[in-house]
Amino acid sequence: MATIDLQEMGARAKQAARSLARATTEHKNKALQDLADSLLRSKDEILAANSEDIASAKARNVQPYFVDRLTLNEGRLQTIADDVRSVAALPDPVGEQFEHTVLPNGLKLHKRRVPLGVLGVIYEARPNVTIDITALSIKSGNAAILRGGSETIHSNRALVGVIHEVLRANGLPVDCIAFIDSPDRAMINELLRLHDYVDLIIPRGGAALHKLCRENSNIPVITGGIGINHYYVDATVDQARAVEVIYNAKVQRPTVCNALGTLLLQRQVADEFLPKVIARLSQADVSYKCDESSYQIAQRAFVVPDGGRTWRIERAGEADFDIEWLSLILSVKVVDSIDEAMAHIAQHGTGHSDGILSQDPANIARFLNEVDSAAVYANASTRFTDGGQFGLGAEVAVSTQRVHARGPMGLRELTTYKWVAEGDGHIRPG
Amino acid sequence: MATIDLQEMGARAKQAARSLARATTEHKNKALQDLADSLLRSKDEILAANSEDIASAKARNVQPYFVDRLTLNEGRLQTIADDVRSVAALPDPVGEQFEHTVLPNGLKLHKRRVPLGVLGVIYEARPNVTIDITALSIKSGNAAILRGGSETIHSNRALVGVIHEVLRANGLPVDCIAFIDSPDRAMINELLRLHDYVDLIIPRGGAALHKLCRENSNIPVITGGIGINHYYVDATVDQARAVEVIYNAKVQRPTVCNALGTLLLQRQVADEFLPKVIARLSQADVSYKCDESSYQIAQRAFVVPDGGRTWRIERAGEADFDIEWLSLILSVKVVDSIDEAMAHIAQHGTGHSDGILSQDPANIARFLNEVDSAAVYANASTRFTDGGQFGLGAEVAVSTQRVHARGPMGLRELTTYKWVAEGDGHIRPG
Repeated sequence: MATIDLQEMGARAKQAARSLARATTEHKNKALQDLADSLLRSKDEILAANSEDIASAKARNVQPYFVDRLTLNEGRLQTIADDVRSVAALPDPVGEQFEHTVLPNGLKLHKRRVPLGVLGVIYEARPNVTIDITALSIKSGNAAILRGGSETIHSNRALVGVIHEVLRANGLPVDCIAFIDSPDRAMINELLRLHDYVDLIIPRGGAALHKLCRENSNIPVITGGIGINHYYVDATVDQARAVEVIYNAKVQRPTVCNALGTLLLQRQVADEFLPKVIARLSQADVSYKCDESSYQIAQRAFVVPDGGRTWRIERAGEADFDIEWLSLILSVKVVDSIDEAMAHIAQHGTGHSDGILSQDPANIARFLNEVDSAAVYANASTRFTDGGQFGLGAEVAVSTQRVHARGPMGLRELTTYKWVAEGDGHIRPG
Repeated sequence: MATIDLQEMGARAKQAARSLARATTEHKNKALQDLADSLLRSKDEILAANSEDIASAKARNVQPYFVDRLTLNEGRLQTIADDVRSVAALPDPVGEQFEHTVLPNGLKLHKRRVPLGVLGVIYEARPNVTIDITALSIKSGNAAILRGGSETIHSNRALVGVIHEVLRANGLPVDCIAFIDSPDRAMINELLRLHDYVDLIIPRGGAALHKLCRENSNIPVITGGIGINHYYVDATVDQARAVEVIYNAKVQRPTVCNALGTLLLQRQVADEFLPKVIARLSQADVSYKCDESSYQIAQRAFVVPDGGRTWRIERAGEADFDIEWLSLILSVKVVDSIDEAMAHIAQHGTGHSDGILSQDPANIARFLNEVDSAAVYANASTRFTDGGQFGLGAEVAVSTQRVHARGPMGLRELTTYKWVAEGDGHIRPG
């Protein structure tokens, strides 16, 4: 493997980005359709490369979930290709004109959407992300420098080979998808300092990766993906529906960042409502970390209901409310008021997705106004915080930082704008 | 002076921001009107503090322009108070609802504008910025931590005293405008790492300050304020109007970032047009840095026209095209085509403000589309790149970075949004 000169790679990506920014929607879509075709046509070589990665992972005795994540097969390749076609079908944000005005002096002004430029994407051992980000980058007119997990380097090399072939065949610059073909972690730090060429860093992975990027980058970083999410349940709640919302938010996919973390129960309703929650969630083997009040209630509701299986209840320490469980554990706390609930969320939340389950319009209005998370919910599952669910078509990341974009980020969030002013010899008065 | 605990200051500012975010528009406006009144009422103590700063600056034999910048007087204080009232009169962006949709499943979704949170503002020896930023922060519902130039510490201390008095009298949290009352530059670096509490760093100053912030911060930074700005002039140009636009862009205020830097002349028009430019600009003592072709033309047009004073012409080295002159120097280059012009801009520009002077719709369209600067112009002065001129009412900064906001930033650019989802027991299908 040749030494990688990231400065050179960055300069070429920036140059390629200028040309990709001018590509027509049809041209980009054609390349994406060809990419979908080529992935399926090249499946033998891709799966052969992937099996090398699988073999080395197994040789290192990694966890089965890790092997599963990096594994490709015909079905998954088909899904990946389908996703590329879906991106091709989305509207192209580039070139959109908005906020037209004519200033009092007659100068015509509007904003025009343009690509961000060059994305630096750092991700873990998931080869599907290589294609996913490539499709989103091409469609939004951005170049990308990819640094995937070293455990999938053979798969990524094969995938990038296909991508470059397709770009070349479509007359698009190969450098617009650059790949750091090296397991050297020092390259990550170098990429994070490539300010002259890279416009945005997108980490796709856990909290540690996000922190690494934020601490070491001189480029803006989209951080997110950490969710300690809350429901506040007040005395007016529609209990039957609320139980189903809680079940959905906690159980449907407990390992993701929009799953439920903590239930905050108003004291008046806790006695009646918590046993109903436990009865429903016992069907999914949920365990509980309870503050003292909710622990007492849960203890009294000790009968495992019909059809329920197991339910373990432990006393929560204060620190438990700061843990993103990513599993079938639910924290529970009894609060006296919506104010106490919102103060708890401000202190322990991660600003991802928080909701209220209530039929009281005043409480709902206060909660939606005052709780400052990327997504706030009234009487709906936090599981909706997702680009696909929110109608963005595809998702680059879920941002929990406040600058640039917040919550699910789609193609449009990979763009910026320029001001376009059209005059007729207009000069600024002194 | 007590030791300053920035962690503590950050935590209090964050807490204050939560409460300021909920303040009504009327409440914030009332505080701003009171601030304007109090500034004028407290003029004696403010000017006394300011004269201490003036005296120490003079004792250190600094440049006169530096003393001028930090000087307050009754007239300037009146202007500052008027500006505060103007901010009070602007629309409040907080709480704006937009992009309402109803998803196919009936879930109601919209975005709601909320303050960014806590701003960290680092600026030079200009006491007016203390009030300017305070007004913009309060109006947009943001807390701010201010670190002004140490040469104006007495003035800033007096101004912040007035601000705190007004906040207190209006029942707003004093901590929402925090002031780092220390000349210690290590405090700047500490502020730049206050990620847990500060949401955005806004440097107000020269290129060195912007670089310092970008290189040392783990918080997003708005960089900007550097402008090497170009006009491309093609053969179809309306020469009489174009000369006036160039005069305005170069001469009106040569020390600011939206002034003209470089003229790129298409070869067919250079011979006829450059002498007209020189004739007009000689009325303002403009000097020229010319590439070889334009140097030859300028030499031939050696007659100082009636009413003109001086005009010096020198050969430009390649590096001259990368200098932001901030003075009455104009770089000139002859190019063969719009492509050569746009390549020059991509290489030497700073992405601030660039324009085309032309009557050819095809060239205009290409230039406005392909030149990727914060503001692009057809037949108008680059001097319009300004929050006031663009109708934003006030300006926090002119961003030349691509993330979050680009070009002039007003109140709205000091906000972010949250997604608000209202359902009726909506759950995500499996």
